[in-house]
Amino acid sequence: MKISEVGKLQCSVAKTLSVIGDPWTLLILRTAFLKGRRFQDFEQSLGLSKAILSDRLIALVNAAIFRRERYQDSPPRYEYRLTQKGLELYPVFVGLAQWGDKWGWEEDESPPITIAHAECGAVNALTLTCGGCGQPVKAQDMEVRAL
Amino acid sequence: MKISEVGKLQCSVAKTLSVIGDPWTLLILRTAFLKGRRFQDFEQSLGLSKAILSDRLIALVNAAIFRRERYQDSPPRYEYRLTQKGLELYPVFVGLAQWGDKWGWEEDESPPITIAHAECGAVNALTLTCGGCGQPVKAQDMEVRAL
Repeated sequence: MKISEVGKLQCSVAKTLSVIGDPWTLLILRTAFLKGRRFQDFEQSLGLSKAILSDRLIALVNAAIFRRERYQDSPPRYEYRLTQKGLELYPVFVGLAQWGDKWGWEEDESPPITIAHAECGAVNALTLTCGGCGQPVKAQDMEVRAL
Repeated sequence: MKISEVGKLQCSVAKTLSVIGDPWTLLILRTAFLKGRRFQDFEQSLGLSKAILSDRLIALVNAAIFRRERYQDSPPRYEYRLTQKGLELYPVFVGLAQWGDKWGWEEDESPPITIAHAECGAVNALTLTCGGCGQPVKAQDMEVRAL
């Protein structure tokens, strides 16, 4: 199988990766979750070529993860805003960010930002929780069931 | 910048993607979280070439995400087991899976498995929750703060 065919696998993870599995795409989404909206926000924060960036932005608009909104008329300029479908990728972003916070840095380095809950102010405190019983869960607490 | 240099970005998401950002690697982790451990488990569930699979498994062992354990002596055969560092990628897996459950399938299709909390039995009910106040959170509820 080629990676471009990954969406053919009967698997929800593969379905997601067929849309956002490219590493540049995941980094573009990171910038969007950090409030980046404009072409130059993505370009500056990622240092990737205009051609690759354009290609990935178009794909994300076509996948309805971004919507393109004009913010200036002459010359026309556009922002890329997360749709509801795009906003619902937030747990993926948080999972990647929190693992990187813990495991990704050398001893003398540390992450430059934190994520805070606006309402209560708790910092870097997001946890995966069971909606049934309210307990935090780990991989070992979960079972896979065939339908 | 090349994608192989993504770990140089001062960003926890990029640090994570420098280790597991390859789409095949993310799919291998998926199979591991679905209890796959042996070479043929990964090979069968993903349909990728032995060469690519070997390459990615070695990289995951070198990154201490898998540990390699001998389960048969003659001929020697090995299992790939998630370490603690690997198990802590579970929220990434859940994020990819739940988004795919909702957005990845055609109308006449549906996911073949569910994930259940062993202790309480709740099915597909994992939510991202603030550890400070216990409330479920969305992207819009969170603020980014520079350190």
